[in-house]
Amino acid sequence: MALDFNLLNQTEAGGRRAQLVLPHQTVETPVFMPVGTAGSVKAVAQDVLETLGAEIILGNTYHLYLRPGHEAIRRMGGLHRFISWPRGLLTDSGGFQVFSLAQLRKVSDEGVRFRSHLDGSSHFFTPEHSMDVQIALGADIVMAFDECTEYPADRSRAQESLRLTMAWARRSLDHLTAHREKVVWHEELGGQTQSLFGIVQGGMYRDLRRESAERLVEMDDAGSGFGGYAIGGLSVGEPRELTLEMISEVLPLLPANKPRYVMGVGYPDEIEQYARMGVDMMDCVLPTRAGRHGLVFVREDPKDRRSAVVRLNVKKLENAEDQRPLDEGCACMVCQRYTRGYLRHLVSSGEQLGATLNSIHNLAFYLETMERVRGDLAGGQLLAKGKNGRSPRELEAGSSLRSE
Amino acid sequence: MALDFNLLNQTEAGGRRAQLVLPHQTVETPVFMPVGTAGSVKAVAQDVLETLGAEIILGNTYHLYLRPGHEAIRRMGGLHRFISWPRGLLTDSGGFQVFSLAQLRKVSDEGVRFRSHLDGSSHFFTPEHSMDVQIALGADIVMAFDECTEYPADRSRAQESLRLTMAWARRSLDHLTAHREKVVWHEELGGQTQSLFGIVQGGMYRDLRRESAERLVEMDDAGSGFGGYAIGGLSVGEPRELTLEMISEVLPLLPANKPRYVMGVGYPDEIEQYARMGVDMMDCVLPTRAGRHGLVFVREDPKDRRSAVVRLNVKKLENAEDQRPLDEGCACMVCQRYTRGYLRHLVSSGEQLGATLNSIHNLAFYLETMERVRGDLAGGQLLAKGKNGRSPRELEAGSSLRSE
Repeated sequence: MALDFNLLNQTEAGGRRAQLVLPHQTVETPVFMPVGTAGSVKAVAQDVLETLGAEIILGNTYHLYLRPGHEAIRRMGGLHRFISWPRGLLTDSGGFQVFSLAQLRKVSDEGVRFRSHLDGSSHFFTPEHSMDVQIALGADIVMAFDECTEYPADRSRAQESLRLTMAWARRSLDHLTAHREKVVWHEELGGQTQSLFGIVQGGMYRDLRRESAERLVEMDDAGSGFGGYAIGGLSVGEPRELTLEMISEVLPLLPANKPRYVMGVGYPDEIEQYARMGVDMMDCVLPTRAGRHGLVFVREDPKDRRSAVVRLNVKKLENAEDQRPLDEGCACMVCQRYTRGYLRHLVSSGEQLGATLNSIHNLAFYLETMERVRGDLAGGQLLAKGKNGRSPRELEAGSSLRSE
Repeated sequence: MALDFNLLNQTEAGGRRAQLVLPHQTVETPVFMPVGTAGSVKAVAQDVLETLGAEIILGNTYHLYLRPGHEAIRRMGGLHRFISWPRGLLTDSGGFQVFSLAQLRKVSDEGVRFRSHLDGSSHFFTPEHSMDVQIALGADIVMAFDECTEYPADRSRAQESLRLTMAWARRSLDHLTAHREKVVWHEELGGQTQSLFGIVQGGMYRDLRRESAERLVEMDDAGSGFGGYAIGGLSVGEPRELTLEMISEVLPLLPANKPRYVMGVGYPDEIEQYARMGVDMMDCVLPTRAGRHGLVFVREDPKDRRSAVVRLNVKKLENAEDQRPLDEGCACMVCQRYTRGYLRHLVSSGEQLGATLNSIHNLAFYLETMERVRGDLAGGQLLAKGKNGRSPRELEAGSSLRSE
């Protein structure tokens, strides 16, 4: 067994309340997954993540492959043991970072040659190699090696990228299937294995997205195929309407009995919106990256947890003597203990604790949001969709939301 | 009442087991006090300090006066409330940082004019002003405004510095005595007040040290004088033998019924040594500063908590795949959860969590050391003095151990 997905409830709008049973953790979905790029959710300790209720976090294959190296992590018992995280783990394929961070890329049908952004050393990633690295890391869920189509991309570029991604998905699936028993915890956990998710690409072209989804689903040979499906290539700079359009196009084509993961999104109101549409898993660096920049998410009316999301710039002078918590309705350890005035002082003074506390609050805010959505979905409430308010996207500009 | 000091036991070597009863906390002494320079023990959250058992921490008057400002802190309920630290607090006088950090100092009998190291703005500190600032901050213990004699200093320089420090001690005492009811928690805590500690200076001259101690003790008019006595001007670059010599010279001259505080020391074996000689309080930035640099203190034989202190450089390649905790005999949350390999990875990758976890371990190591010493002193065990092993002092070079 690699993964069980138990659908508990579904709303008319498509939102699903489910349990994702992984070798290391049963995850309540829809779920938001904090990003632990290099084996640490930046500035936040593992016991704090546990207290916050995080059930699954991400690791980035590209970063961990370069440093400390996947073989070193395998020797130390896999990523769970290495970072002391007994709960769920997901690794991406490395593809996204190869295309966004690495230098001097040369893409062929076989794979990608690139130079490390750390030291300029030369590396060659193929779908098979990405699988080998991810097997060594040993996350519960691994991702197919794909080419994330940039935005904007013209149709022929998106088509070529899609062709490559589909061929690589097949090779990823074949290679993982042949080697899935090599994961370090295979025997210890009674013969369980990693699950591979396929990734839908296709740029911002609805028909290419459809083609990508259909071809991935076809790869599911007699049930031994993908454990779930991701929608990639979003949150790459496109307007939110387009993100929504692509998700809406793809979701109905994916098998209802498998989890659906939208990669790299987003703002708190976005993840709520997509979860209500039927997206089961999402991840984003925003809560921690924004936190490090002194930006926190709060509710417009703290007493109404369904009110609009507001972004607060902690550094602003108006917070200097504000003795309220960041969000008076938030139950997190930061809002229970510290004032805006103190947090403003920490950020203004460059104290590391400021980044930590703001990140903790933001993660709590995201996780609380998803907990509320799960409650709604479980109750079968058919809520009107939230206001489609646009959040400023300055933080995204020119940077990846998949790792940090 | 400002302070009670209840001596519980004393050894032949002079070591004292006592309780220091402060308005906000009863502190078991001898005690090591973590330094929270700008209102945060760098990279460590307040709940973690509580879990570690820290009963009193320091705040630096110079830093907090400049940012966010003592009047702002007073308006926010004083430093305890501002930083959400309900336990004991001590503030220094600002003098040390004025002399080590500020620019363009001009000293007169009246006080010191200086420019802020942050923005170059001009400020004038007098003993009276230092007291007013410390009253606004509202720590349980405040320090007399002194001039910390630099090392090396010739005899006439040390004499002149001592003259100034003694005059300023008198003025500090008079001003605090006249205004001690202004502290923000005075009424809330049933009329309790802050305690002022006098500071012994005198450079590295035994006779000047003696003179300084005797003159300070004489200022104790009918019991309404200093709540305790500090030995300042140490750990300023002198060899450890000289530190020890000055402490040995001064301790017998100080009243036995009041706490004795050696400022800004030191290495774990140093604080143990001085505690066994009769020093009740010590503070130092070393555990956190070393932690941020990837340097941690461990026992040579982890099973023997009395074995020598060893400094481990976490970054070293030899730790890359070491699956042991930093210190196998340490009960701290870091040693209970994380391996040297993981901590090495965090430090090498520049992950903020590395600084946090190393700092937590070092603080735990210091606090554990003092807990063990307290146990020994309470049992009346007259242990042989530990080896006087010298620790490398690279971390001290040219920098202050009083704030960071």
